Amino acid sequence: MDLAAIYAPVQEDLDLLHALLERELAADDPFVSELVRHVLSTRGKMVRPALVCLSAGASGGAGEARLWLAAAVELIHVASLIHDDIIDQSEVRRGVSTVNVQWGNQIAVLLGDYLFAKAFDLLSRIRHPDVAPTLAVATVKMSQAEIMQIKFGQEPHGDEHTYFEIIAGKTAHLISAACRAGGLVAGNSAAADRLGAFGLHWGMAFQITDDALDLTSREDTLGKPIYSDIPSGKVTLPVIRALAQGSARDRARLLGLLAGGARDGDRDELQRLLVRYGGIDYALDIAGRYSRQAAAALAPLAPGEAKDSLLALTEFVVVRSR
Amino acid sequence: MDLAAIYAPVQEDLDLLHALLERELAADDPFVSELVRHVLSTRGKMVRPALVCLSAGASGGAGEARLWLAAAVELIHVASLIHDDIIDQSEVRRGVSTVNVQWGNQIAVLLGDYLFAKAFDLLSRIRHPDVAPTLAVATVKMSQAEIMQIKFGQEPHGDEHTYFEIIAGKTAHLISAACRAGGLVAGNSAAADRLGAFGLHWGMAFQITDDALDLTSREDTLGKPIYSDIPSGKVTLPVIRALAQGSARDRARLLGLLAGGARDGDRDELQRLLVRYGGIDYALDIAGRYSRQAAAALAPLAPGEAKDSLLALTEFVVVRSR
Repeated sequence: MDLAAIYAPVQEDLDLLHALLERELAADDPFVSELVRHVLSTRGKMVRPALVCLSAGASGGAGEARLWLAAAVELIHVASLIHDDIIDQSEVRRGVSTVNVQWGNQIAVLLGDYLFAKAFDLLSRIRHPDVAPTLAVATVKMSQAEIMQIKFGQEPHGDEHTYFEIIAGKTAHLISAACRAGGLVAGNSAAADRLGAFGLHWGMAFQITDDALDLTSREDTLGKPIYSDIPSGKVTLPVIRALAQGSARDRARLLGLLAGGARDGDRDELQRLLVRYGGIDYALDIAGRYSRQAAAALAPLAPGEAKDSLLALTEFVVVRSR
Repeated sequence: MDLAAIYAPVQEDLDLLHALLERELAADDPFVSELVRHVLSTRGKMVRPALVCLSAGASGGAGEARLWLAAAVELIHVASLIHDDIIDQSEVRRGVSTVNVQWGNQIAVLLGDYLFAKAFDLLSRIRHPDVAPTLAVATVKMSQAEIMQIKFGQEPHGDEHTYFEIIAGKTAHLISAACRAGGLVAGNSAAADRLGAFGLHWGMAFQITDDALDLTSREDTLGKPIYSDIPSGKVTLPVIRALAQGSARDRARLLGLLAGGARDGDRDELQRLLVRYGGIDYALDIAGRYSRQAAAALAPLAPGEAKDSLLALTEFVVVRSR
């Protein structure tokens, strides 16, 4: 199934969501409006809002709150991307210029803050007492993991344990919270627990695959530069594996290539070393295991098209090319 | 009354608050802990948490929620200061090195995000349905006003109307929300309305005075550099007034001094021009009017020491030296 087919049960929700975001982000100030237009024009894969709506659907119910929740989760994600792009000095995101490149770091800091605040504004309107706390705790973990990631990148030999802790914090917990909250707004706390477990495993599979794609995809397919994690100091699983498995000589060479920022001319050699020590296969294998655990977590849920889509996403997450 | 005397009715609350912040911000990661220690070691005047606790007190009640609320409001404020210091490239805050200087902009962006998220985590635990929305909406306004402020600073002739709109958004609405929410957690919605009005006027008086102090105070008294607003592109009321009142020749000279960033050697002349056209007196006069409106808003509240302190703060806000 491709993404459009997977999203079919919630396509209407996603259209409503876009209208809701346009309405909620409408600003009197013309400059703020211009910034918001930029944000809304560059929709990504909308994975997180789709997961929220599918989770609500798979939990057998959905009021207006699912849209507020989906919008809030997407805004938290977009805000964090805008701030990440400052940190990584990225120039292209979702195929267009980043906010930091187009308007400078000052505006990028504030626009991220504005979208974070708007997300919590939306969450604060959801009357279920556990929804906002669930998302807030996940957002705390996300920021903390991003801080840890910067420190981690300053150590040349990353260890797997810290890597998994960081990607859980920066990606999987927010996705888990989004899925769980989707169950909560549908009023089904038993399903919410399963969806929380699904989201945690799915999020791990998603981030591990994302990190591998940075090393194996093509720039025009991915919509952003490849080999971007290395110059921005992110030590990812294929690299950690190759460093751990490599001969002393290859390890030294690999560290040299990493320290050099994996420049264009070095990429073939880097690729060969990662393949020689099975770094990419190793990472994709672990992602596959997480995706199967995600699927298993859904077993107790009642059958239906939303559940089918969530299951399809557990396959999609590891075979996607962007 | 000095600040210690004004805070007396809530001094115990402020001590509990500090313990609560230490507990809430405790992190497993040693680097995150180091950052948090820096944040907690540099307590400012604690005006916002004091206002929350005094507002709760003046509304005749207070459970644990007032401390969560006070902590959340302080964290939103501190997070915004950390991000402001990136934007203004500030080097000193509250007498010590800023986060951006000590650890770089990347960490400063993420630490601000972490504290924002933690603030909303605390707010999400408060069961009163209007508290989190009140603070979230004020935080949205704050970020939006900061974006507007950057644009405003790029236009040499500021207008008063936009200035008031910006300071309301970046300062007064959050203080208003904090005071209002203090009444709400105390379960007194009639008092909350009065406290919201008090906070809005008090916040305007506070920011106008703050902006004037940047031009009239001494660096060792203020704990941060003076004349900092001009190089960072903030057009404040004394300057707007002098530009509006000045002769064509003095206006041109003033614009030249502003464009030059108000360097040390230019400050005496700048000061003379602001005094000649009554810019600082004009600003302080308006601040005084706001502070009297703040006091008037409290009239219907029952008498008591918390109310007395709030009234004392309406005097303090315009006579303070830092």
